[in-house]
Amino acid sequence: MSKTKGRVTLPSEGNFLEETKEMMERWGADALRDSDGTKLPQEIKALDAKIYTTYFVARGHNDFAREHMDECQQLYLMSRRVTATGDEVRIPFMEGYFDQQVVPDYDHDCKRWWEVMDRTLGEAVAVEDWEVDREQDMVIVHDAHPFHEYTVSFLVFAIWDPTQMYNHITNDWGDKPHEIPFDVRQPASGRFAKGYLAQWLKEEPDTDVVRFTTFFYHFTLVFDNKAKEKFVDWFGYGATVSVRALEAFEQEYGYRLRPEDIVDGGYYNSTFRVPTRQYLDYMDFIQRFVAERAKELVDLVHEAGREAMMFLGDNWIGTEPYGKYFPQIGLDAVVGSVGGGATLRLISEIPGVRYTEGRFLPYFFPDTFYEGNDPCVEARENWLCARRALMRKPVDRIGYGGYLSLAYKFPAFVDYIEEVTDSFREICANIGRSKPYSGLKVAVLNCWGRLRAWQTFMVAHALWYKQTYSYFGVLEALSGASVDVVFISFEDIRRGEALEDVDVIINAGAAGTAFSGGAEWLDPDIVTAVRRFVYNGGGFVGIGEPSAVHFGGRFFQLADVLGVDKELGFSLSTDKCPMKAEPHFLTEDRKEAFDFGEGMRDVYALSEETEIAEASGGEIHLSSHRYGQGRGVYIAGLPYSFANTRLLLRSLYHSAGKEEEMLRWYASDPCCEVHAYPETGRYAVVNDSPEPRDTLVYDGEGKACQVSLEGGQIIWQEIGQGLS
Amino acid sequence: MSKTKGRVTLPSEGNFLEETKEMMERWGADALRDSDGTKLPQEIKALDAKIYTTYFVARGHNDFAREHMDECQQLYLMSRRVTATGDEVRIPFMEGYFDQQVVPDYDHDCKRWWEVMDRTLGEAVAVEDWEVDREQDMVIVHDAHPFHEYTVSFLVFAIWDPTQMYNHITNDWGDKPHEIPFDVRQPASGRFAKGYLAQWLKEEPDTDVVRFTTFFYHFTLVFDNKAKEKFVDWFGYGATVSVRALEAFEQEYGYRLRPEDIVDGGYYNSTFRVPTRQYLDYMDFIQRFVAERAKELVDLVHEAGREAMMFLGDNWIGTEPYGKYFPQIGLDAVVGSVGGGATLRLISEIPGVRYTEGRFLPYFFPDTFYEGNDPCVEARENWLCARRALMRKPVDRIGYGGYLSLAYKFPAFVDYIEEVTDSFREICANIGRSKPYSGLKVAVLNCWGRLRAWQTFMVAHALWYKQTYSYFGVLEALSGASVDVVFISFEDIRRGEALEDVDVIINAGAAGTAFSGGAEWLDPDIVTAVRRFVYNGGGFVGIGEPSAVHFGGRFFQLADVLGVDKELGFSLSTDKCPMKAEPHFLTEDRKEAFDFGEGMRDVYALSEETEIAEASGGEIHLSSHRYGQGRGVYIAGLPYSFANTRLLLRSLYHSAGKEEEMLRWYASDPCCEVHAYPETGRYAVVNDSPEPRDTLVYDGEGKACQVSLEGGQIIWQEIGQGLS
Repeated sequence: MSKTKGRVTLPSEGNFLEETKEMMERWGADALRDSDGTKLPQEIKALDAKIYTTYFVARGHNDFAREHMDECQQLYLMSRRVTATGDEVRIPFMEGYFDQQVVPDYDHDCKRWWEVMDRTLGEAVAVEDWEVDREQDMVIVHDAHPFHEYTVSFLVFAIWDPTQMYNHITNDWGDKPHEIPFDVRQPASGRFAKGYLAQWLKEEPDTDVVRFTTFFYHFTLVFDNKAKEKFVDWFGYGATVSVRALEAFEQEYGYRLRPEDIVDGGYYNSTFRVPTRQYLDYMDFIQRFVAERAKELVDLVHEAGREAMMFLGDNWIGTEPYGKYFPQIGLDAVVGSVGGGATLRLISEIPGVRYTEGRFLPYFFPDTFYEGNDPCVEARENWLCARRALMRKPVDRIGYGGYLSLAYKFPAFVDYIEEVTDSFREICANIGRSKPYSGLKVAVLNCWGRLRAWQTFMVAHALWYKQTYSYFGVLEALSGASVDVVFISFEDIRRGEALEDVDVIINAGAAGTAFSGGAEWLDPDIVTAVRRFVYNGGGFVGIGEPSAVHFGGRFFQLADVLGVDKELGFSLSTDKCPMKAEPHFLTEDRKEAFDFGEGMRDVYALSEETEIAEASGGEIHLSSHRYGQGRGVYIAGLPYSFANTRLLLRSLYHSAGKEEEMLRWYASDPCCEVHAYPETGRYAVVNDSPEPRDTLVYDGEGKACQVSLEGGQIIWQEIGQGLS
Repeated sequence: MSKTKGRVTLPSEGNFLEETKEMMERWGADALRDSDGTKLPQEIKALDAKIYTTYFVARGHNDFAREHMDECQQLYLMSRRVTATGDEVRIPFMEGYFDQQVVPDYDHDCKRWWEVMDRTLGEAVAVEDWEVDREQDMVIVHDAHPFHEYTVSFLVFAIWDPTQMYNHITNDWGDKPHEIPFDVRQPASGRFAKGYLAQWLKEEPDTDVVRFTTFFYHFTLVFDNKAKEKFVDWFGYGATVSVRALEAFEQEYGYRLRPEDIVDGGYYNSTFRVPTRQYLDYMDFIQRFVAERAKELVDLVHEAGREAMMFLGDNWIGTEPYGKYFPQIGLDAVVGSVGGGATLRLISEIPGVRYTEGRFLPYFFPDTFYEGNDPCVEARENWLCARRALMRKPVDRIGYGGYLSLAYKFPAFVDYIEEVTDSFREICANIGRSKPYSGLKVAVLNCWGRLRAWQTFMVAHALWYKQTYSYFGVLEALSGASVDVVFISFEDIRRGEALEDVDVIINAGAAGTAFSGGAEWLDPDIVTAVRRFVYNGGGFVGIGEPSAVHFGGRFFQLADVLGVDKELGFSLSTDKCPMKAEPHFLTEDRKEAFDFGEGMRDVYALSEETEIAEASGGEIHLSSHRYGQGRGVYIAGLPYSFANTRLLLRSLYHSAGKEEEMLRWYASDPCCEVHAYPETGRYAVVNDSPEPRDTLVYDGEGKACQVSLEGGQIIWQEIGQGLS
C-alpha cells in the first residue's frame, strides 16, 4: 500500500511541534484541531494544515451573560410527586434539583406560566387553588384531594451549561467560572452572538474551520441536588423553552402550549414517547428558528472566508441533520463521534453539507492511555465496527481527540492508526461517492422516520441500556449490510408513496414506544397500508413488540401478517399450537445458540401456518409467516453480533421472497462481508472480525470461490476478476 | 392412634362386595359412590353406607332431547378473522369448529342475532352490508374495506355435551350416542328436568345422596374441527346463551346485549378480562335464574327425603358457590376435586351448605395404577399439599374416584390411605369447626373478589400455565398460612368497609388482567382508598404487575406506595437509583436462591428510600417501601414453594408493621408450620415436607423450643403444654 495523505484531523497542543509534524506525516493528517480546554499555539497553526477552532455560541461569554441574567436559557421542570394527606399540600418543587444549575423563574407570572397537576386525576389544579412561597421555593395547594398525587411544572433559568458543569465537576476545576447559557432568541443575546462571532473571526485569522460546539440549545441534561445526572435525553428540547418562545409559538400556531405539553408527566417527550401533535409542532417551530439563526452565523463565517463545521452533539437541538430545515443552515461540514456502524452512518449520510467527519475512538486521554494498557484494543474494535458502515457510505474524513502527546507515547498504537488512516483513504479512493450494490431496500418504520435516521433507541448518545440493546442491534447490523436503508414515519405512510420501492419494512421496539409505534397502529390507514404492502409481496420484519397496542382482541395489530401474537393473559383460554421449531431458511448457517438479548415473552403462533424457526421455554423467538405474496418474520430481539447480522439479512431476503438473490456479493462466513461498487468497478471482501476467516465469496452472478482472510483484512478487486 | 370411622367416601363397582367391605373397614368409609360410567350393584347399595348416585340434569336424556332440538343449548362463537383483499369478503364462519359439537342456529333471524365485526375499525358492519349463505355456512360481506379484518359472531346450537364428548373420544366409545345438552330455560326442557328427577327419585330408593353433575350449563369448552380442545374457560358463561335468555335479559335490564358483549373479541370474557358492566349484569342474570331453577330440583330431592350434593365443575356455571344466590339453592353439600391447598380451601369454605367433600388424588385409574408405578407418590404429594389447607379450614369429608378394584391391588397404597384417612379424622376431631389462630387478616384484591375466592389465576381447573403459576403460588401459599384470607373486589372498596379490619392487601397478576385490575386503578376512589389504608398502617403486597395501567407518568399506579415502578421505555432518560440489595427482614431465613417464577422485568426503585431485598440482572424482584405508617412490598412473582410461602408470610407481617408478632405459633423451618385452635385448646406442629425436619417451634407467647419431626408428621398438643 503506497503512502497517501489527507482526510485526517488530529488534535495538537503546545510544546509539541516536531512530534506533531511527525504524526501528521505518519497518519497523513491535513487538519489540526484544538481540544476541549486546549488552544493551539501559533507555531502549530502555522503548519501546512487546515486549522479547526472550537467555537461556543451560547456559553463561555460570562461577561455578557452576567449582565443579562434575564436572558438565560430556560427549562420547564416537574417537581417530585407529593401525596396529599390532608387538604393542603406543600410541594418543595426545587427538591432534587441542583441549585447551581437551575433557579426558579419568578420574573414571569407563575400563575400564567406554571401548572400544578393533580396526577391522580390527570388534571391541572385551578390557579386560584394554589400559591407560591418564593422564600421557600414552595407551592402550596389548597382544597387538595387527600391521597391524590400532585406535581408542579415550573419554569427555571439555567445558570450553568450542563456540559461545562459535567467537565467542571468531573475534573475538579474549583473556582473556574460556571459558564452561563444564554438564549439567542432574546434580543441582547441574539445581537451579542452575531457581533461576537464577527469580531472573533477578525481576531482568529489562522482558523480555517469554525467548529461550532454547537449552536444554541443543549439537549436536555438536568442534574440532581448532589450534582449527579438526573435526567438525560440526547434528543430533548428541554432547554429550548422560554416565555418568549412560548409566546411566539402561540402567535404563530394559534394555540397555547401548556407546561404539560413539555413536561409530559415527567417523561419530557423522551424520544421513546409517541410524539403528540403539540410536541411535533413545537419541534418544528424550534427547528425553523434555529436553522434561521444558525444560518446567520454560518453566513458570517463564509463572509470571512472560512468554513463552518457543526459538532453533532451538546447544543445541537434544533439542528437535527435529517430535519427539514438543516440544509438551509448552509454548513460546510458536520463532525460527530463514531461509536460504531450506526453512529458512522448517522454522520456519513447527512445531507446538505460538503463533507462529514467522524471522530474515532479512543480519545487520547489518560483513562485509556496509561502504562500497561493497550489502546490498540479499543481502536481496533472501534475501527472494525465502524468500517462495516464506511463500506456502505464513508465519512469524508476521520479524526481523533484528546492529547496527541499521550498517544505519541504508545508506538504500537501509532503504528496501528497509521494502518487505519491508510486503509481509510484507500476505502475512500475505491468507493468515492458511488453507490454500493444493494440487494434490497429496507425501510425502518417508527414515529420519527427520517428525522431520527440512525438515531433510534438512543437515550444518551450511544450508551448501552438494558432496554435498548436488543433493538439497537438492528441499526448496527443494518449499518454495514449490503442493503439500502431508509427511515420512514407513520406520517410518511399516511401521505403515501413511502413504500413504493421498498422491499422490506422493519418495525422494532417495545410496545407503546415511538419505535414500535403504539397508538399509531390503531389508525386503519396504517395497518391496511402495511398489510397491502406485504400481501403484494413485501416483507415485514417485526422485532420485539412490533405493531403492539391492545385492541380488538389482538396485541400485535399485524398479528395476521406475522402469524404470531403475544399472550397478555386474556387469551389463555384459547389452546395454542405446538411450539415446535423446524429447520428453516432463517437458521441455515446458524452454528451457535441464538441470542435474542432481552428477548420477548409469551409470543405464540396463531396457527400451524406459522413457521417456527426457534422456540424455547414455551415461547416463540423466531418465526415466519406467509401473507399473500409476502411474509412476516418475527424476531424476539436482535442484539448486535455477526450471527444476528446474518439472521437479520436472512430475514430481510426471506420476508421479501428474494432468498435466491441473497447469494450475490455475499460471504458465507457471517464474520465476512462483500461490498461491490459497480460505478467504480471494484469490490471488496472484508473480514469484520479480528480473527482469520475462510469463507466462500459469491460474486454478482452468484459464483462462489473460497477465500482466506487475515483478521480484519480487506481485499480489493476489480469486478469480473476472481480472488484466487 | 385408635381406629376411627367416617368422613370418607369410596367408589365401588360390581363383583367387588367383600373387598369393598374390607376397604370400608380399613379406610373407615361411610359412603359409597358410583363413578363416571359405572353403576353400583344392589349388593353394594345394601351395605351400611350412604349411597351417592351421580345425576345429570341437562344431558343423558337423548330420547327427550332429540325431539326438542330447538331447545338445545346455544353459544355465541366468533369466526376466525378474515382479511378483505377486495371489496367482498367471504367468511366461512364454521371453519375451525367441530360440526359434531355445534351447528349454526338458522332458526332465529341471523340479521337480528348475529353480528359481523370490522375488527380493524372495532365496529359492527351494517346488517344490510352482509348476507348469510346457509348452504355453505358462509357470511358474505359487501362493500368491505380492503385489508380490514372481519369476523362473524354467530349463534350455534350445541348438540354434544363437551365432557361426554371428551370422554367419548378419549375412550373411543364408538357409536355410543352423543349426549345432547338441552336448556332448562326452554319450556319443554324445564318441565322435563323436573318431571324426570321426580320420577328418578322414585326409581332409585337406595340413593341417599343425589350427586348433581352438575346443573344446567357447562363451562365454556369448545372443540376444533379435529375434535381437539380449542377454547376452555372453567368460568365461562358461553353455554348459557340463548335467544330466550337474551330476550329475557333485555326485558329485565332495559338494554340489549350485543353479540360482542359475549364474544368479546374472541376472549369470551375470560376470567382474566376486567369484566364489563354488561357482562357483570349478564352473570348476575344467569346466576339468579340458575339458583332459582336448581332450588326447584333440590326441593324435589329433599321432598323425597334425600340429600342434594353438587359437584363443583362441569355444568356448574351460575352456581358459583361464593356467589350471591348460591345459598338459596339449599344444597346439602358440595363435592369437588382437590388439586392442592387452594382448591381445598375453595371447597372447604363454601357457605350455605351443611358439609363439603374433597375428592383427593390420585384417581384409581390405570394411568397411575399400573405395575411398576408407586401410586403413593402422587397420593402423598396431594395429601401433604392439601393438608396445609385442611389445618386452616377442613373439608368435612374426603373421597376418592375411579375403580376401587384397581387400588386394591396396591397394598402399600391401601396402607398409606389408611394412614391418611385416620389422620384426616384426627384433624377434624381436633379442629372441629373452630377458628384457628390467625396473626393477620389478608385481603386479596382483584376484579372478582369473593365471587371467585380461591379461584384466581385459573383457566382450566387447576392446570399449570406458564403465565399463571407465578401468581397462583400466592393462593397456594396462603391456603395453609396462619392468616385469615378474604377476597375483595374493587367494587367492594368503592362501597367502603371492605378494608376495615384488614391488615394487608395483596394485588397480584399481569397488567390489564382482572387479577391485577387494569383500568380499575384509574378510579381515584380506588387508589386513594388503598393509599389511605397503607398510610394509616396497612400493608400492601404487590406481585408481578400490581396496580398496573399506564397513566400520568406511572405504570404502577401505586408506585408511590411500592416505591418501585416498571420501566416501559418512556422513562429511560431518568437516571435510576443503584439496584443494590441489602440484608432485610424479608430475606432473613432465606437459604437458597430466590425463585420468582416468570418474574417481572425492568422494575426499578423510585428513590433510595426503597429498600431493595433482591435485585439481579438490572431489575428489582423484591423490595419494601415505607408509606406513612404502612408499607408496600413488591415481589416479582411467587410460584409455590416452602421458601416462597415463608417469603410471602414475611412480606405480610412486614408490610403491616407487625414483624414482632410473626413469631407466634410459628416454626423456624419454612417446611414446617404451627396451627393453634384456641377454641378447642389444641395446637399442631406440622411437617409439610416428606423429609424429617428439625425446627424451632414458637408458642402463642413467642417462646421457642426445638422439635424434630418425621417426614409428613403432625404432632398434636394441648395449648400450654410443651413439646419435649
